[in-house]
Amino acid sequence: MKKHNFNAGPSILPREVIEKTAQAILDYNGSGLSLMEISHRAKDFQPVVDEAVALFKELLNIPEGYSVLFLGGGASMEFCMVPYNFLEKKAAYLNTGTWAKKALKEAKAFGETVEVASSEKEGYTYIPKDYEVPADVDYFHITTNNTIYGTELHADLDVNVPMVADMSSDIFSRPVDVSKYICIYGGAQKNLAPAGVTFVIVKNDALGKVSRHIPTMLNYQTHVDKGSMFNTPPVVPIYAALQTLRWIKAQGGVEEMQRRAKQRADMLYAEIDRNKLFRGTVTAKEDRSYMNICFVMADEYKDLEADFLKFATEKGMVGIKGHRSVGGFRASCYNAMPVESVQALIDCMQEFEKMH
Amino acid sequence: MKKHNFNAGPSILPREVIEKTAQAILDYNGSGLSLMEISHRAKDFQPVVDEAVALFKELLNIPEGYSVLFLGGGASMEFCMVPYNFLEKKAAYLNTGTWAKKALKEAKAFGETVEVASSEKEGYTYIPKDYEVPADVDYFHITTNNTIYGTELHADLDVNVPMVADMSSDIFSRPVDVSKYICIYGGAQKNLAPAGVTFVIVKNDALGKVSRHIPTMLNYQTHVDKGSMFNTPPVVPIYAALQTLRWIKAQGGVEEMQRRAKQRADMLYAEIDRNKLFRGTVTAKEDRSYMNICFVMADEYKDLEADFLKFATEKGMVGIKGHRSVGGFRASCYNAMPVESVQALIDCMQEFEKMH
Repeated sequence: MKKHNFNAGPSILPREVIEKTAQAILDYNGSGLSLMEISHRAKDFQPVVDEAVALFKELLNIPEGYSVLFLGGGASMEFCMVPYNFLEKKAAYLNTGTWAKKALKEAKAFGETVEVASSEKEGYTYIPKDYEVPADVDYFHITTNNTIYGTELHADLDVNVPMVADMSSDIFSRPVDVSKYICIYGGAQKNLAPAGVTFVIVKNDALGKVSRHIPTMLNYQTHVDKGSMFNTPPVVPIYAALQTLRWIKAQGGVEEMQRRAKQRADMLYAEIDRNKLFRGTVTAKEDRSYMNICFVMADEYKDLEADFLKFATEKGMVGIKGHRSVGGFRASCYNAMPVESVQALIDCMQEFEKMH
Repeated sequence: MKKHNFNAGPSILPREVIEKTAQAILDYNGSGLSLMEISHRAKDFQPVVDEAVALFKELLNIPEGYSVLFLGGGASMEFCMVPYNFLEKKAAYLNTGTWAKKALKEAKAFGETVEVASSEKEGYTYIPKDYEVPADVDYFHITTNNTIYGTELHADLDVNVPMVADMSSDIFSRPVDVSKYICIYGGAQKNLAPAGVTFVIVKNDALGKVSRHIPTMLNYQTHVDKGSMFNTPPVVPIYAALQTLRWIKAQGGVEEMQRRAKQRADMLYAEIDRNKLFRGTVTAKEDRSYMNICFVMADEYKDLEADFLKFATEKGMVGIKGHRSVGGFRASCYNAMPVESVQALIDCMQEFEKMH
């Protein structure tokens, strides 16, 4: 049976990315060696990193003066690396979900922090809008898509301070004005690559401004200076990321990814709003995520939750169980998600509705 | 042409590890999904981590009270995590090479450090033996195999303080008395897996003894508490590591790995010592590494270096160019290296000798 992969992360990748990576693991570029056993400094691997960096810059239209890094450790490691590198006196954070809150928690050990707004008390069902960002902060940190709660900032904010953004779960799903940010980072395992590589886009002249000692590996400058080759980078995930970047470009770039994301989300939210059995969890419709579409059973059908999960699973839906913080269902629809899979889920919802 | 993979890292892996990983990337356990796009919390991935931890404990005979972690970031990240977690007042380091020196450098920012001995002035051509480790240090840090200079500690040391060891390049190549260590760590990309996963063996009751704040991701306790699942771990490298661990067990465990390592090294060093064209770089023969066998052209044949590299490369030898710090040649012979490849290199050396 055809599987429809709605996993929240690690998550769906284009089939050609999977096949090219498997092939490179069996035999890399006809070398007689596996991608897993070649030196990261080999003549035929450096071009992989170089092209991945170039495609990042091209696809996101990154201005001059920025570096693109591929590191290990995941976005959670960036939660401490960001304040290590940028927080001298004070930083502002927008609390829009579990990951945003974790990022803020790490920063507190490095200096003064200001939570400019939070929707935590309302179960993160919307993204706060009316708040002031203090003009004297070193940066303002946002999480552009909240994977667990299904809210998303669909456009760059207008604030008068440099921004830092965790874009783990919506990178390459829309155009970004990178010039507004001193740092954009994310784990790759949603829209880009298998788990094990973290991307960081960093503004070069924002570095070197804090007075604290920074351990070598936690200092972005180390990796900028060495082009992500200070130590052995995660070779296989970087190779897979390059295949995804090529795929995104071939499909039409981030504008096309955005069009598809909106199409998928519009289809699925329309069904959630129409179908008597379900309701969306995000109260502010303009904040509904295109990437993680969260819904629960309508109150009068609460007891059908386990039945629907079983029904949809039997039809080939994978990974639609909601996060335990929200319950219900979450259909994660990252860049590689075909519209056919969204339609298959909608078909499930309609068929299940007819049964009740 | 058959390739003989002497890469220093990332480096040779057993063919079945490569094939099983490629297959899992195409279709994981018949699930219809790729290993790259399943959740790390999926029911069929948790057993991978569990079995990898169990095999670590079994193969290295790890006593009760230790945890095995799989992290990102590489051994270089451990250079700061070790003092972050263990250095309260004073730590001792043995300076036996580039990586040992880097580990010491990171520790200096965290407390008092003592370099108990160093062979740096002699080009790291031996491992210092006559030194005293102060009794009041929090730990004594060693690098058991020095990849660049080709020296190795072939047995655990006898000291009266807890040890920490970087075993990146010789893990699973010999039995280890883990009870002598509070922490053993290493990048996996030599004897275990592709780049992107770092193993850490940590003594549980050695944690929690420093007074400083430790960022969440840098705190070993975080990963002990969550079984390496605090955040998304590097799924593909961990899967490949499991396949290698199974292979090591099936081959006869670390005793058999040690026997093969010694056999390969004895063969190659014998040829280096016999062949008039070459000489070994390590002056203390008892310190010669079984993992990284370094040699240069004998003085009167210095001008043949480029010729031999070309000659051997044409015969299928890969990665034998020495590190720029040492020059000449380095044949890295990790666990998966077949004796046939070592013989092929010896044949090259003998054939080249006949030509001159």
